[in-house]
Amino acid sequence: MDKIHVLGHKIPDTDATISSIVFTEYLKTKWVHAEAYKLWDLNNETRFVLDYAWINEPSTIKTLEPKSKIALVDHNEYTQAIDNLADLEIHYLVDHHKIWNLATNYPLFIRTEKLCSTSSIVYKMMREDWIIPSKEHATLIISAILSDSLHFRSSTTQQEDKFIVEELNLIASIPNIEEYALAMFQAKSDLWNITVEELIKIDYKEFDFNGKKAWIGSVETTNPNYSLNRKTEILEWMQKIKTTDNLDIILLSIVDILNEKNTTIVYWETEELIIKNVFWIDTVDNLADLWNRLSRKKDIIPQLTEYFSK
Amino acid sequence: MDKIHVLGHKIPDTDATISSIVFTEYLKTKWVHAEAYKLWDLNNETRFVLDYAWINEPSTIKTLEPKSKIALVDHNEYTQAIDNLADLEIHYLVDHHKIWNLATNYPLFIRTEKLCSTSSIVYKMMREDWIIPSKEHATLIISAILSDSLHFRSSTTQQEDKFIVEELNLIASIPNIEEYALAMFQAKSDLWNITVEELIKIDYKEFDFNGKKAWIGSVETTNPNYSLNRKTEILEWMQKIKTTDNLDIILLSIVDILNEKNTTIVYWETEELIIKNVFWIDTVDNLADLWNRLSRKKDIIPQLTEYFSK
Repeated sequence: MDKIHVLGHKIPDTDATISSIVFTEYLKTKWVHAEAYKLWDLNNETRFVLDYAWINEPSTIKTLEPKSKIALVDHNEYTQAIDNLADLEIHYLVDHHKIWNLATNYPLFIRTEKLCSTSSIVYKMMREDWIIPSKEHATLIISAILSDSLHFRSSTTQQEDKFIVEELNLIASIPNIEEYALAMFQAKSDLWNITVEELIKIDYKEFDFNGKKAWIGSVETTNPNYSLNRKTEILEWMQKIKTTDNLDIILLSIVDILNEKNTTIVYWETEELIIKNVFWIDTVDNLADLWNRLSRKKDIIPQLTEYFSK
Repeated sequence: MDKIHVLGHKIPDTDATISSIVFTEYLKTKWVHAEAYKLWDLNNETRFVLDYAWINEPSTIKTLEPKSKIALVDHNEYTQAIDNLADLEIHYLVDHHKIWNLATNYPLFIRTEKLCSTSSIVYKMMREDWIIPSKEHATLIISAILSDSLHFRSSTTQQEDKFIVEELNLIASIPNIEEYALAMFQAKSDLWNITVEELIKIDYKEFDFNGKKAWIGSVETTNPNYSLNRKTEILEWMQKIKTTDNLDIILLSIVDILNEKNTTIVYWETEELIIKNVFWIDTVDNLADLWNRLSRKKDIIPQLTEYFSK
């Protein structure tokens, strides 16, 4: 059987990377020939987690031969997927995001649930089939849940995600989950050696809001001031990206993990008006205080989608 | 919690009806308030099966209040769904068909697999959660699999579907599956008291092929001649429906279950040309011999979708 290429989203984060690794393992237990790939360099948090669990990075690919067989994990929108998605055959989709105009000519395997991480869903599939993850993979899945839920702070967290962390730590034996999560977030916040361009591209996703092209970035960090102090440079780069990528909207949320606070850098009047209309919040000096809207998936995107669908 | 309305497709068949009943039961075990509905009268096969299992018909609804919460089973295309789908909130989707431009503003529960019936998938979900179906529901699930797979004759049948029938018959104790399937198909073929209009509408689905509106009907029967002998009347009705429903394409397959043969009634030159281009088959006297293409889902629709996507 042809190989299934298991792919996370374009700008890999911890959950996309880990769900691609663990779902690949799941497929292998079903005698499906599968391999995980990443589409871009990993961020510092994901590197920290893979190092901790002694797991190698997946190799990087940019495109695949037409007709290649793929599994999509942790995304389903073409704007976030491998460039030549339209030429490829999707055989599996495991995700926890809203569904974007998904269309196929054929039935396929889909599993989506409203859990905080895609890795939670992959683990449920393993458990349903009596597959016990290795210590390394249990560590990875816990890390993905801690990462996507900001250690249970995000509004996307479900009771089930917390149970899964407890259950898996019987295998992973991470001595102190609290400290481990903090170390992950500090690795993610370790931004001193990156450029402003790298900073604002650390975790962004593109969306198609009823024809409007939007770029919504997020910097989850234990040290928000580091980013906020570079606001002027960041605004210059946002202007640059808006022009080169031909965007209608650009926003960058600086998410203070420990204080559970989202300060969003608002590039221009268009975006100011959107923030005002959608969240009833004023932008002051290009900054909008979006309070505890920590989750892009739950607290930002549905509201923008609704706004632009009118 | 608001009630989840569990809905099959517009023209209910055995699998749509049974998967709505059994998925409702599944949701109830999760303490979700749920009720199954049908959107139209049941066919004779489905009635026979429900009678055999001593299960009542779901009640019929045509539309729901805006913002009502729903689960879709056995379909996902708006052309086949409840009329005011756009006003409703989809919370669950369980299906085994191709995915048609599905889009939501929010994450939801989706489970699709390439199994012969949606009921097979619902049963897998029950088994994964250690829910043992009652004798009545085991009988229903077996019936849905026999119906959708034409007792394993259809190319959509998977080994897994066969295992499920074996496993469930330990509970259902149907004395002879072969005879039971035959009785189901005979109930389905019991067409003497229905009008030609009812006959051609017994199991049809509408599709949107890249903007073309298509109506693809199917009469699965142990007595194909009964339908084929009424060809002249059927063609008159196809003409009528094509005009009133403003269709681009109309086709009606008469599927001989026992001899595994699909003879399709082709209304007009447009459709003749499509059949010629897609399947390389000539239409003679408005009849196209489509051989053993028994499954609309697998043997007809993907090919037409591909053709119209060019």
